[in-house]
Amino acid sequence: MQPLNEKIVETDLSQDLLLKMNAYWRAANYLSVGQIYLHDNPLLREPLKPEHIKKMLLGHWGTTPGQNFIYVHLNRVIKKYDLNMIYISGPGHGGPALVGNTYLEGTYSEIYPEITQNEEGLKKLFTQFSFPGGIPSHVSPECPGSMHEGGELGYSLSHAFGAVFDNPDLIVACVIGDGEAETGPLATAWHSNKFLNPLTDGVVLPVLHLNGYKIANPTLFARIGNDELEELFKGYGWKPYLIEGEKPMEVHAKMAGLLDQVIKEIQLIKTTARENPDISRPRWPMIILKTPKGWTGPKTVNGLPVEGTFRAHQVPITDPATNDRHLKQLEEWLKSYKPEELFDNNGKLLPELQELAPVGERRMGANPHANGGAVSYDLILPEFSEYALELKNRGQVGPGDTFVLGSFIKDVIQLNSTQKNFRLFGPDETLSNKLNAVFEVTNRQWEGATIATDEFLKKQGRVMEVLSEHQCEGWLEGYTLTGRHGLFNCYEAFIHIIDSMFNQHAKWLKVTAELDWRKKLPSLNILLASHVWRQDHNGFTHQDPGFIDHVVNKKASVVRVYLPPDANCLLSVMSHCLQSRHYVNVVVAGKHPSPQWLNMDEAIVHCTKGIGIWKWASNDEGTEPDVVMACAGDVPTLETLAAVSILRERLPGLKIRVINIVDLMRLQPESEHPHGLSDQDFDALFTKSKPVIFAFHAYPWLIHRLTYRRTNHHNIHVRGYKEEGTITTPFDMTVLNQLDRFDLVQDVLNRLPQLSDKAAYLKEEMKDKLIAHRRYITTYGIDMPEVRDWTWPRSY
Amino acid sequence: MQPLNEKIVETDLSQDLLLKMNAYWRAANYLSVGQIYLHDNPLLREPLKPEHIKKMLLGHWGTTPGQNFIYVHLNRVIKKYDLNMIYISGPGHGGPALVGNTYLEGTYSEIYPEITQNEEGLKKLFTQFSFPGGIPSHVSPECPGSMHEGGELGYSLSHAFGAVFDNPDLIVACVIGDGEAETGPLATAWHSNKFLNPLTDGVVLPVLHLNGYKIANPTLFARIGNDELEELFKGYGWKPYLIEGEKPMEVHAKMAGLLDQVIKEIQLIKTTARENPDISRPRWPMIILKTPKGWTGPKTVNGLPVEGTFRAHQVPITDPATNDRHLKQLEEWLKSYKPEELFDNNGKLLPELQELAPVGERRMGANPHANGGAVSYDLILPEFSEYALELKNRGQVGPGDTFVLGSFIKDVIQLNSTQKNFRLFGPDETLSNKLNAVFEVTNRQWEGATIATDEFLKKQGRVMEVLSEHQCEGWLEGYTLTGRHGLFNCYEAFIHIIDSMFNQHAKWLKVTAELDWRKKLPSLNILLASHVWRQDHNGFTHQDPGFIDHVVNKKASVVRVYLPPDANCLLSVMSHCLQSRHYVNVVVAGKHPSPQWLNMDEAIVHCTKGIGIWKWASNDEGTEPDVVMACAGDVPTLETLAAVSILRERLPGLKIRVINIVDLMRLQPESEHPHGLSDQDFDALFTKSKPVIFAFHAYPWLIHRLTYRRTNHHNIHVRGYKEEGTITTPFDMTVLNQLDRFDLVQDVLNRLPQLSDKAAYLKEEMKDKLIAHRRYITTYGIDMPEVRDWTWPRSY
Repeated sequence: MQPLNEKIVETDLSQDLLLKMNAYWRAANYLSVGQIYLHDNPLLREPLKPEHIKKMLLGHWGTTPGQNFIYVHLNRVIKKYDLNMIYISGPGHGGPALVGNTYLEGTYSEIYPEITQNEEGLKKLFTQFSFPGGIPSHVSPECPGSMHEGGELGYSLSHAFGAVFDNPDLIVACVIGDGEAETGPLATAWHSNKFLNPLTDGVVLPVLHLNGYKIANPTLFARIGNDELEELFKGYGWKPYLIEGEKPMEVHAKMAGLLDQVIKEIQLIKTTARENPDISRPRWPMIILKTPKGWTGPKTVNGLPVEGTFRAHQVPITDPATNDRHLKQLEEWLKSYKPEELFDNNGKLLPELQELAPVGERRMGANPHANGGAVSYDLILPEFSEYALELKNRGQVGPGDTFVLGSFIKDVIQLNSTQKNFRLFGPDETLSNKLNAVFEVTNRQWEGATIATDEFLKKQGRVMEVLSEHQCEGWLEGYTLTGRHGLFNCYEAFIHIIDSMFNQHAKWLKVTAELDWRKKLPSLNILLASHVWRQDHNGFTHQDPGFIDHVVNKKASVVRVYLPPDANCLLSVMSHCLQSRHYVNVVVAGKHPSPQWLNMDEAIVHCTKGIGIWKWASNDEGTEPDVVMACAGDVPTLETLAAVSILRERLPGLKIRVINIVDLMRLQPESEHPHGLSDQDFDALFTKSKPVIFAFHAYPWLIHRLTYRRTNHHNIHVRGYKEEGTITTPFDMTVLNQLDRFDLVQDVLNRLPQLSDKAAYLKEEMKDKLIAHRRYITTYGIDMPEVRDWTWPRSY
Repeated sequence: MQPLNEKIVETDLSQDLLLKMNAYWRAANYLSVGQIYLHDNPLLREPLKPEHIKKMLLGHWGTTPGQNFIYVHLNRVIKKYDLNMIYISGPGHGGPALVGNTYLEGTYSEIYPEITQNEEGLKKLFTQFSFPGGIPSHVSPECPGSMHEGGELGYSLSHAFGAVFDNPDLIVACVIGDGEAETGPLATAWHSNKFLNPLTDGVVLPVLHLNGYKIANPTLFARIGNDELEELFKGYGWKPYLIEGEKPMEVHAKMAGLLDQVIKEIQLIKTTARENPDISRPRWPMIILKTPKGWTGPKTVNGLPVEGTFRAHQVPITDPATNDRHLKQLEEWLKSYKPEELFDNNGKLLPELQELAPVGERRMGANPHANGGAVSYDLILPEFSEYALELKNRGQVGPGDTFVLGSFIKDVIQLNSTQKNFRLFGPDETLSNKLNAVFEVTNRQWEGATIATDEFLKKQGRVMEVLSEHQCEGWLEGYTLTGRHGLFNCYEAFIHIIDSMFNQHAKWLKVTAELDWRKKLPSLNILLASHVWRQDHNGFTHQDPGFIDHVVNKKASVVRVYLPPDANCLLSVMSHCLQSRHYVNVVVAGKHPSPQWLNMDEAIVHCTKGIGIWKWASNDEGTEPDVVMACAGDVPTLETLAAVSILRERLPGLKIRVINIVDLMRLQPESEHPHGLSDQDFDALFTKSKPVIFAFHAYPWLIHRLTYRRTNHHNIHVRGYKEEGTITTPFDMTVLNQLDRFDLVQDVLNRLPQLSDKAAYLKEEMKDKLIAHRRYITTYGIDMPEVRDWTWPRSY
């Protein structure tokens, strides 16, 4: 194997143009250093003094000049080929680069008019960076053209692919740092090219920007040699081009030539696909760009090498305000960019340099795709009530709640097939989660090879399946960040794989909601089917309902959690979620045949309220009950109603109120969450003093965390998952965690002020039932008939 | 590029031996099918009847025959070359394969004597599988030889590398399914070969077992073509060998030849490394094995193809008990393995087949490395008190708590350099987290290329750094699962990346603790430096203290959370953690210079109790205080003491009790956690009726979740992180979340029954302070001097 030589494509650009591009780059670098260091004297009109330096120096220089370099070159090809392109900055700490470039191209001042195109504006631009009351050092929501902050590394490439699905004219230039390239999510994201349709999707142009170091260490990719680099990316299915260098004019020439080549290849692939939509998977070009970390920055500081080493990562000169020599060095560094040749007397970029940037929405800072709400169409939704299960009697067994939902989702796909703004994502669990119906109208999008026995694999499809929750979530995030809609269906336990991605997305939503110019994004919808209670067959590793604990830690304004108890409620909830904007909606639902409780009219009322008394199950007849039995989630609802049926038959004098909760946030105080019930309403439901037996889908203490301020909190006794499970029967899962009907009956009896003989007898009977259950399942391996075949309102 | 042809190495094995190996494989396959289907008639001594079939059919056939195939071939080379080898099963659902093979080799019956080597034992073996009261369908903790359950996919290869670090004679055969290979963590784990020292570490032999499908879909790796496969793995730095086939005897011959070749290559690399420890990074061999999914199972069922398709994933014939034709088909399938040629009249494997398995601890089911506690030595720990910061006065500013810890860790490394059983893991944050001292005695282990300006990179070292939290966690898990010790240091916000890995490890610990034959493992220790309150410089994306919420959802018996308030406490806590076994210990500590509160004697007492009154800060003098000010975490402790100093100076009549919490689990009821305080002790500390102002490191509601059952809970008012932050000053982070001293003083005053004029005036003054703070930081970008320079007991 020959080592990969640089793929140098001779450029036909004039030296004059390359020099101008270099000047533009110098301007961007100057602005970057200015942002990190200066709060005054932005054009160095006077000698640099300590008082011009910020008191706290924060920022990341290392990645910045390379990103400035890429930006100016992309600007050229955008103009030349009239490209519709956005820029994703994987090394998110390179904020100065993107802020600087969007300022130079004019978008920054359009969005933030106080940051004017003159010396005063420059001073403000510099001062606000990494400054209290100013802007973060990342490519944060505040930065025009950003749809990806990159504070946590790993997701740039997944976001890029999500952005180009169904955006056939869009090119996302995705800059990936060699630090980020070490992460797992990024490592598998390279395979996204097997899911991209060259005709109907856009293009991702990855630029692997190797500057050699992460924080204090060299990176793997910088030290494996060009031969392995080439093999790796060919193996990933790309056509890699590598250029490297440190002499600016040489690298400019190489990069310009290469970008012309790469854009032509992209255009050729697109043209070929238009002529023959069945072309086999193209090898899209990608660029590996090796330049020094902290390029053009100080070569050495205090005798230690800086440029081209890990020491260039953050602020290369740390003490210019207190060290004269270093102040001088900083001044020389700034002056090395020759600002006087770049900006006019007022501090505005010279017109001949301005000309290098694209105009209008072609500017990457102004491309509406990076402000996805601005190019977002509402979904056309079918009337969800038409998918209702007819309720002949309470407790009738339905075909599986998510199975019913499947038909609705199928029609969502169908109705939006023209505007192409809905996709379904999942780690190969669409069938397992019983959304089978969707395959009546669509397929899995797949650019890999196919064979005769395959099912539902096509070059175009609305279903995206890959065995990587990171990819599913990242693609969906990218898809919604560019204004489209989607649903991620996932096993409940394994959604924790993307806990951290959820965090970052929720933070993005919180901050963008506070920026007027950012338009509201479609919500990110997560359906957790295959939940904890029905992982009896997969065992303990598959049992974890804690994602919703994680979700409710984020800002109340952006998170919603729903636990529909049956299919009609699931339809109502999902329709609501798909219409909503700027939330993360988490819906937990069952996939197995299970009892149905509400007809569609009742379901609509119930889901609209989010919480309510189920009168038909209660016998308190509008009076104060003896006990409240609350439930949230399909299995807890089943066990609660089974317990109620026992109690009502055996102790008919006991007044029971049954409350079901669909919208978990209703439990919180109204001061804490916009969906929160008032204390008065809460008290009216849960009483001020009666025992509440609460059967909950997830970990029990979440209910306490949500209700600890409520009047009757000390009477709320919660059953939920307490981390007990294995391979067993479905009912035994509830028994292991004491959420089962026999334990719930005992819970009620234990909280009554005194027990009648009948009640005392019933309690003993419940214990016997549990013994009988254990004996039965360990003999037969299935649940005993009285449990398996139970239907409301039979007791047992 | 030529497509990768199979690398066929002619085998010199006799046809007789290959036929025996095939017979052994048939036996394993027979046992696998038996486990999935049968609860009686295990040797088919009578015609198969519906009553012999389990009532619930659970299991995963698809991956099983391939894993049986690999196992029998590994057995041969273990015997031939006397290898010290364990088997990691990435496709964890292949439980039947590993259970069956460990039964055949005899280890199963040694650990579970009731599962005898005869017909009765076979019946039990079959019945218990995926059965209530039996064993899970994964390669779970119950399975001998397993150190990796694989219920959640992605971590097999990281575990494998963790296992071989510092185990120079160990080979881990790591079987990776093509489903798992799509995950992010696995995709980057291939790069682990750049961190393996061929002399001092063992060997990982990956077997990428491509059977083509995940659940209902083909996999990427099965459809990208052999040319890309070869390039990809060469690019990852491996030497890939591919064999494929479906005719058993042909594939046996290929596999046998290949394994001889591969073992010889491994031995050559090891020998070369012994002769020349400086050899450049070897290209270790790996195997790509392509065989049909559900190999040897039914070709078709109901006219649909099964073998070699996704339909072979779980139970290929679903209804043999109720469908005669299918019962017949199952019987034919079972009989196709010719059990009568494999087992003697008693149901024991024939001696000539038994001979194929290794003996004693060479059996993969009996290798002690897979029961890591059995080969685990305690760490030699230095006396932590010798690293104490001398406390000259309360509140003196230390050099950074983790910086102090660094010297202790350095000596832990030094003292255990001979027994080589401690490593430090992190995503390139060892320096950033101020553990600099370790580099005085060790280096980062690194097999990549180096250049002159690199620091602390050597072919051997105790520090493992890669920019992948998944890798760090996975390596450390593998290291502790094989009995060694370690510490993972990580940014607090980004530890959520491994939420799901933590879940799975905590579940492993819970289940193994219940198995007598499993020996206790070293604890998995996580140090969260660079925590939420000091991410002022990195901004909102880096601020998330929610990992401890996540941790406390797992079984109380295996999780511990510590929040040492200063360096001496951190030393005490960490020394305790490094001695402990079978926990996940999470320690949150600061890295920046910050106030110190306790001398070492006090710290030892305080950390031993885990919670206590700080008398020197309180003025209640043993009487009932007017207010309790509680704090947990370094920054909350600082703000609490600053608030106390204001209150004590300005309102000297107010009786304040200061409580500091190191061990968070002390707050829970003793019924909920072994560290929980009794109600009596809790009441004695927090009073039964006085206001408690609690300044907490993380999300405030966690304190409510832990204390909601306590007498005085309704008086506990918690301040913590409420998801407000950006780039700002350190003190402003507390202000944004109202955890600052000025807000805490107001919190106290708001809860007093009535305010004196002085108190009312103080309250207004606090508001003014907050206004002054805002003005100061937005002008100067740093905190105002009275905050920056504050030291106890000065007020302000």
